[in-house]
Amino acid sequence: MHADSAIEVTVTPARMGKVPLENAKEKKTEFSLVRVKSTWKRTRGTKDNMDRADCVSDAKIYESITEQGTSWTVVSPIVFTYKVTETHNLLDPCNDTLLLGQITDPQQVEDMRKSSKPLKRFIVVDQEVYKIYGSKLTEYLEANNVLYKILALPTTEENKSMDIALKIIEEVNNFSLDRRKEPIIAMGGGVCLDIVGLAASLYRRRTPYIRVPTTLLSYIDASVGAKTGVNFANCKNKLGAYVPPVAVFLDLSFIQTIPRRHISNGLAEMLKMALMKHRGLFELLEKHGLMLLDTKFQTDKSIDGHNRLQAASRATRLAITTMLEELAPNLWEDDLNRLVDFGHLISPALEMKVLPSLLHEEEKQRIISCMVGLELPVWHEGFTMELIQKSLQDRLKHSGGLFRMPLPVGLGQADIFNDTSYETLHRAYEKWRDELSISHCTSSIRSVKL
Amino acid sequence: MHADSAIEVTVTPARMGKVPLENAKEKKTEFSLVRVKSTWKRTRGTKDNMDRADCVSDAKIYESITEQGTSWTVVSPIVFTYKVTETHNLLDPCNDTLLLGQITDPQQVEDMRKSSKPLKRFIVVDQEVYKIYGSKLTEYLEANNVLYKILALPTTEENKSMDIALKIIEEVNNFSLDRRKEPIIAMGGGVCLDIVGLAASLYRRRTPYIRVPTTLLSYIDASVGAKTGVNFANCKNKLGAYVPPVAVFLDLSFIQTIPRRHISNGLAEMLKMALMKHRGLFELLEKHGLMLLDTKFQTDKSIDGHNRLQAASRATRLAITTMLEELAPNLWEDDLNRLVDFGHLISPALEMKVLPSLLHEEEKQRIISCMVGLELPVWHEGFTMELIQKSLQDRLKHSGGLFRMPLPVGLGQADIFNDTSYETLHRAYEKWRDELSISHCTSSIRSVKL
Ligand SMILES: NC(=O)c1ccc[n+]([C@@H]2O[C@H](COP(=O)([O-])OP(=O)(O)OC[C@H]3O[C@@H](n4cnc5c(N)ncnc54)[C@H](O)[C@@H]3O)[C@@H](O)[C@H]2O)c1
Ligand SMILES: NC(=O)c1ccc[n+]([C@@H]2O[C@H](COP(=O)([O-])OP(=O)(O)OC[C@H]3O[C@@H](n4cnc5c(N)ncnc54)[C@H](O)[C@@H]3O)[C@@H](O)[C@H]2O)c1
Repeated sequence: MHADSAIEVTVTPARMGKVPLENAKEKKTEFSLVRVKSTWKRTRGTKDNMDRADCVSDAKIYESITEQGTSWTVVSPIVFTYKVTETHNLLDPCNDTLLLGQITDPQQVEDMRKSSKPLKRFIVVDQEVYKIYGSKLTEYLEANNVLYKILALPTTEENKSMDIALKIIEEVNNFSLDRRKEPIIAMGGGVCLDIVGLAASLYRRRTPYIRVPTTLLSYIDASVGAKTGVNFANCKNKLGAYVPPVAVFLDLSFIQTIPRRHISNGLAEMLKMALMKHRGLFELLEKHGLMLLDTKFQTDKSIDGHNRLQAASRATRLAITTMLEELAPNLWEDDLNRLVDFGHLISPALEMKVLPSLLHEEEKQRIISCMVGLELPVWHEGFTMELIQKSLQDRLKHSGGLFRMPLPVGLGQADIFNDTSYETLHRAYEKWRDELSISHCTSSIRSVKL
Repeated sequence: MHADSAIEVTVTPARMGKVPLENAKEKKTEFSLVRVKSTWKRTRGTKDNMDRADCVSDAKIYESITEQGTSWTVVSPIVFTYKVTETHNLLDPCNDTLLLGQITDPQQVEDMRKSSKPLKRFIVVDQEVYKIYGSKLTEYLEANNVLYKILALPTTEENKSMDIALKIIEEVNNFSLDRRKEPIIAMGGGVCLDIVGLAASLYRRRTPYIRVPTTLLSYIDASVGAKTGVNFANCKNKLGAYVPPVAVFLDLSFIQTIPRRHISNGLAEMLKMALMKHRGLFELLEKHGLMLLDTKFQTDKSIDGHNRLQAASRATRLAITTMLEELAPNLWEDDLNRLVDFGHLISPALEMKVLPSLLHEEEKQRIISCMVGLELPVWHEGFTMELIQKSLQDRLKHSGGLFRMPLPVGLGQADIFNDTSYETLHRAYEKWRDELSISHCTSSIRSVKL
């Protein structure tokens, strides 16, 4: 390749970011990076140089020389890899998922199993979860001869701050981990997972961590992506990082002890993904939603138990795969057009309320009935047109001047709208409000849980 | 591709991380991710599906189904792109680099130049830098009709903490930026750049920022990589992130006001890179080092000034390109074998002192003379064998059980050593100490600046 040849980008251009264009007085060179012994060298990428290399990097350096001076553009892809794993009886001493499940090399797992060297783990647990599962967790760690420290914290939305993240870091620092081999474990709801994720991301610029979600919402949402965060200055998740865990261990049995209204919360998130992306999941929730709510996704050995298991695991699996589909290609949220933002623009209840104006009458009725069945609110007096307008103005400010409003256009199909006028929204809003007064849900259900 | 076909990884395997191997009772599927309209779908990658897609992601999802349940491995590359640009007279009101230099699309730059809409910028400046350059900076921003806020802070090593980072974030939050278009600007030495980089990385999980280095060390080192950080619990840079700036603007003229011993600091870093990777840079420092120190990398219009310009820009450019070569392929420091760690294992002075035992007598003498010429310490009574041993034990703990000691094996050539025994080190240490007493440097220079 000649020094002044056109730039060739090998990673998909859309994800590669832009590279400065050539101009008349500019001398531009693309460099590959190759390693010979321990030293990286930039090279114009002649076959000879490449052949002699021990290793060729995916990174590139573009050098541009003009009269003003030299300029380098560095383009460097970082590959994030993480594992989301279903398991049963995570805290059964015979199950070593919690300790070794993050290791991807089977040979290494075997070696660790045989080794008598005790493992070392730092575990942060939500205080309420600790009350219920603390003794089981301790027994598990003792039985497996682990050198451990359990930090049980009140990881509530009010405490979700940098203070508590720093407290965790301080304890981790005192405990002294081998940051390459001894991941920090977070066990709790979305609040706990978000805080610990941020603490781990900051400590030594990145310490591996593991998520064990114990609420339905965190099971299907907060645990499967890269986002971590804490609240700041009265704003939710204003500080954070995009660093995925090394592994997520999913065990539905934790869900059995969470309050009914938190199950509804999780079902709302599942319903959102169903409406946007998966008709089959919607139908599953329509048919089995109430049963899932009643049984808290738990099963027993009866025939009925088997059917419940089927429904519970099918529903959670579908929610996770549809969620991962949207998260994996946009892990750092570089693309501002995100279906998963559905429900985040104004408020989940309102958006679910506004959306059916785009749908056929029959589908609309099915959604309302399903929401009522899952004990989700379908109306709130507090939602005014002013509130909507304010939310949308905030949205404009933070999403590059466009609404980027994700809405379903059929059951399980969605699109992103930028040209929804306030008039359209207003009409949809009024229509919906009027219809609600003659809707099938009883007024006691309509006003529940807001 | 069949559902059970072998896994194909398209990104270079070494950077891709490991993907679980197949086992007998496991059904494994590789999914690509394609976008149709606004929705991402996973697909087994048949040509048909790929052809219909608006966009194909570089991310993959590997699904594995066993009796224990389902497991998903997400592999998602994030591409970081940033620009390092030399400029002259950065604070000349006619130079719009500081305001528009980060934009890579020339058309957009043109549009911005023509637009009458004022730009908005939040600028954090080291307090000492503000004393010297504050009025120039203010004039620059006024002349360019910028809505700005300058935050001048005592960004010293003692203040390099999460507290000051949070203070910056608070002010940024009050100022209310469009986080997509209005980067935060950091102007100062490595301490300032590191703190602001961390604050920006945390705010809204990532807000673009720009680095303007004003010391020689930060010009050639702290500004060109992805690392940000603050001190914590008495440990240097214990908290941080790997998020590169959108752009770095390099202007050598800031260097004219920094104290001579800080120039020496920067020259030490340049010398390190020269010893490890670039003989030409070493020879440049050998020949012109003292002149660069005397003139603080500044030039004038004389013939001599022209030669000085040549030397100053050649030396800094070589330092930056050799540095970028090592940083770009390892932006997140996934590879623990790093030449740039030379000087970080024990201490720069000691490592430079130990290393010549690997070299020929003549090269060793040249290095000593060069260090003396750059006014760098070549000996310190405080370095004991105990200290070395302790440093190396720490190293073992944090680098996966291996020393990974980078050392030059010739002028401008290096290798990474794992099997250096304490005995070898001890011999090198004693040899060096004995030689020093008969070395050419005067004892006043030998003990200077420690
Ligand atoms: N990172 C992400 O991508 C992401 C996505 C969605 C939500 N979130 C965050 O998640 C948080 C909400 O998560 P959440 O709904 O899990 O709330 P939560 O973490 O506050 O948990 C809810 C309550 O349930 C209790 N609890 C948890 N597990 C229990 C169990 N097994 N048995 C009994 N009680 C239990 C907790 O103590 C808490 O009182 C929010 O802060 C939100 O910002 C993050
Ligand atoms: N992120 C990285 O990759 C990286 C790499 C190397 C070093 N660092 C960090 O950089 C820091 C050291 O940086 P540094 O050596 O620039 O120190 P510094 O930032 O403390 O600056 C040194 C001194 O020079 C003053 N100063 C700065 N610019 C000046 C100017 N133009 N004129 C007059 N005075 C000026 C400052 O006020 C300060 O007193 C360390 O904290 C180190 O951890 C980071």
